[in-house]
Amino acid sequence: MPLLVMKFGGTSVADLDRIKNAAEKVKREVERGYDVIVIVSAMSGKTNELVGWVEQTSPLYDAREYDAVVASGENVTAGLMALTLQEMDVPARSWQGWQVPIQTTSAHASARFVDIPRGNIDQKFAEGMKVAVVAGFQGVSPEGRITTLGRGGSDTTAVAFAAAFGAERCDIYTDVDGIYTTDPRITAKARKLEKIAFEEMLELASLGAKVLQTRSVELAMRYKVRLRVLSSFEDSDANSGTLVCDEEEIMESKVVSGVAYSRDEAKMTLVSVEDRPGIAAAIFSPLAEAGVNVDMIVQNISEKNYEGHSVAVTDMTFSCPINQVARARKAMEDAKAAGEINFDELVEDTEVAKVSVVGIGMRSHAGVAAKMFDALSVEGINIKVISTSEIKISVLIDRKYMELAVQALHDAFELDTAA
Amino acid sequence: MPLLVMKFGGTSVADLDRIKNAAEKVKREVERGYDVIVIVSAMSGKTNELVGWVEQTSPLYDAREYDAVVASGENVTAGLMALTLQEMDVPARSWQGWQVPIQTTSAHASARFVDIPRGNIDQKFAEGMKVAVVAGFQGVSPEGRITTLGRGGSDTTAVAFAAAFGAERCDIYTDVDGIYTTDPRITAKARKLEKIAFEEMLELASLGAKVLQTRSVELAMRYKVRLRVLSSFEDSDANSGTLVCDEEEIMESKVVSGVAYSRDEAKMTLVSVEDRPGIAAAIFSPLAEAGVNVDMIVQNISEKNYEGHSVAVTDMTFSCPINQVARARKAMEDAKAAGEINFDELVEDTEVAKVSVVGIGMRSHAGVAAKMFDALSVEGINIKVISTSEIKISVLIDRKYMELAVQALHDAFELDTAA
Repeated sequence: MPLLVMKFGGTSVADLDRIKNAAEKVKREVERGYDVIVIVSAMSGKTNELVGWVEQTSPLYDAREYDAVVASGENVTAGLMALTLQEMDVPARSWQGWQVPIQTTSAHASARFVDIPRGNIDQKFAEGMKVAVVAGFQGVSPEGRITTLGRGGSDTTAVAFAAAFGAERCDIYTDVDGIYTTDPRITAKARKLEKIAFEEMLELASLGAKVLQTRSVELAMRYKVRLRVLSSFEDSDANSGTLVCDEEEIMESKVVSGVAYSRDEAKMTLVSVEDRPGIAAAIFSPLAEAGVNVDMIVQNISEKNYEGHSVAVTDMTFSCPINQVARARKAMEDAKAAGEINFDELVEDTEVAKVSVVGIGMRSHAGVAAKMFDALSVEGINIKVISTSEIKISVLIDRKYMELAVQALHDAFELDTAA
Repeated sequence: MPLLVMKFGGTSVADLDRIKNAAEKVKREVERGYDVIVIVSAMSGKTNELVGWVEQTSPLYDAREYDAVVASGENVTAGLMALTLQEMDVPARSWQGWQVPIQTTSAHASARFVDIPRGNIDQKFAEGMKVAVVAGFQGVSPEGRITTLGRGGSDTTAVAFAAAFGAERCDIYTDVDGIYTTDPRITAKARKLEKIAFEEMLELASLGAKVLQTRSVELAMRYKVRLRVLSSFEDSDANSGTLVCDEEEIMESKVVSGVAYSRDEAKMTLVSVEDRPGIAAAIFSPLAEAGVNVDMIVQNISEKNYEGHSVAVTDMTFSCPINQVARARKAMEDAKAAGEINFDELVEDTEVAKVSVVGIGMRSHAGVAAKMFDALSVEGINIKVISTSEIKISVLIDRKYMELAVQALHDAFELDTAA
């Protein structure tokens, strides 16, 4: 029997009506001939309520008790979903993590999967169960304690089950109807993609398209699990939403698939850092220890006349989220005071945004960068920092031009029309 | 190490402040040198919310899913209580039913204990845990599904743990400060009992003193678990509340320990039922099938002249809760229509109440009934039905005299003063 994994997030199971709506989608797949594993999140708001209680009770909480409390939200939804399916004459039952058992590491609140043995669930499928409703986000440690995977973990649970059970596809039902070439709020020309490669999705996710948890996409890529993102609030068929899949499944693709952006960036430049081996580590280790998420890094070497000698100095520029600037500055000044690094000046620019074009096609196409820079130049947008990877080119620009840049790039790469 | 079981009901853990208050009581017992097993209910209101969701989803729900959903309320409290104790530097951890594992039958929503193996919890006590916080009301079936014990099951969980672990005492914290000679709302002379025998407590519980679940008292009696009922909202020491114990622990006791009442009773009389073998079964089987909780039963035999013959006929009177009268009448009329029973008339009296005196002392003292009837007669209260057991005498009277009757009996047996 072919098998599907279907995952419903918190807003898709927010109340009994929505659970019923989700159950109808599950029933339709059963009628199409599938065995189904449904992964559910907690009803929206419930996890926050539970987390709130734990944090009020114990600011430095025992993560094992945190997990035991917080995982209960998914257990409730799993039971209610199974009951709803039974009401529709679909043979279904709920599974809590320990009943599968979903084996994880002991890293409470951020556990990782160790194994998902198929035996118990397969046996029930053999006995006539059509739908296994599994509580997402949770598992059980080698010590027999309840674990959770961290926020967004239900996506990861879904992909892991799809891999373990060899599912034909893993459908992630959410409150958007797919992955777009860019944010439709910025340009009405944004077009829903039919397919997108795992690598592209990873670049888009980490750039702020918060539809799928990054870790779930990594896991899907590793096990070649075909992921489909679609809306739980619309009717759907096998062509709905966006399929996230191996690039080989994508026959004809554009050079660029999408334009991503990140609004709240800051650019920091350490002016005239002495250029010596190990200087990069001396700068970025204290930043990492301070919890600063450094994104782009650019270094320019120059010469400087210092007390009559010519020494090699460099300007080191990096970007980070705007709300980490104070922390970054303190880390740099402390390192300077400790004599670990030296610089003339620390220049901050908190009025920047990042815009990126992403596409696996650019690996085999030259000229993408030139086309991007040209499109921005036509609009009179000055580029402050450039950073490139194999399938992505990102630039930092003045924040006030961000929307204009996204529109210009979307036009330049003709993303409003299919390949 | 001596061990105590402490149970906190829903109102005693209704919010984080009350959980903290309860945890302080637990800490005090740890400081007195006890290892403690704490049994918790769900935060008040939570179980009703969960039950409501289940019933709305599926009126004829799968009890296995009902249990999986409803048991989650206790899991939340157990985790929060363990965290609260840890904040007070008391080594504590939470235990869900399957982690102990609390083995029950598969009778979902009304499961019974099969075994509570001590191994896992004892091992943690040996490793330094001082408090095991166990989610009440739940267990796990031989099939590995979550079970619940039915409403009030947390009391039963507490007694079962006290029996399994040989606890010195099982303290039931609730919203009253003990068991009274009668309802203090009816007479200010009502006095808190220091001790009460299991048997008396059973009679009082089934008569409406809803402090302890009947089943938990039966279990305590069978395993001779000393139960203490006390308030979670007052400071307490080893003498607080009321001890429910074996009668041998009660040195000097009154003939009568308490006066109980039940307001919403109805009396039904089948007039001129043919008196033949099997007639009682023919009447009460259909009532049982209709779900009528028959309480008192009285039969008077008389002769009746029927078509020239003298036949033995009887008036059969029984009492039941007032809201079951319609159901009882239908059952009787259906049985008459089916030719299973015959009667001239069905007389209903829905304006009655039941008043009872209870006491193990009356086993060895004659004259209790006479004293009771005399006290009622002095007040001009007419007795409609009398029913007696070894340690209880109950009467049905007009409802409007109920409070007067309770007061008169409380005075007559001098319950306002200690033995």
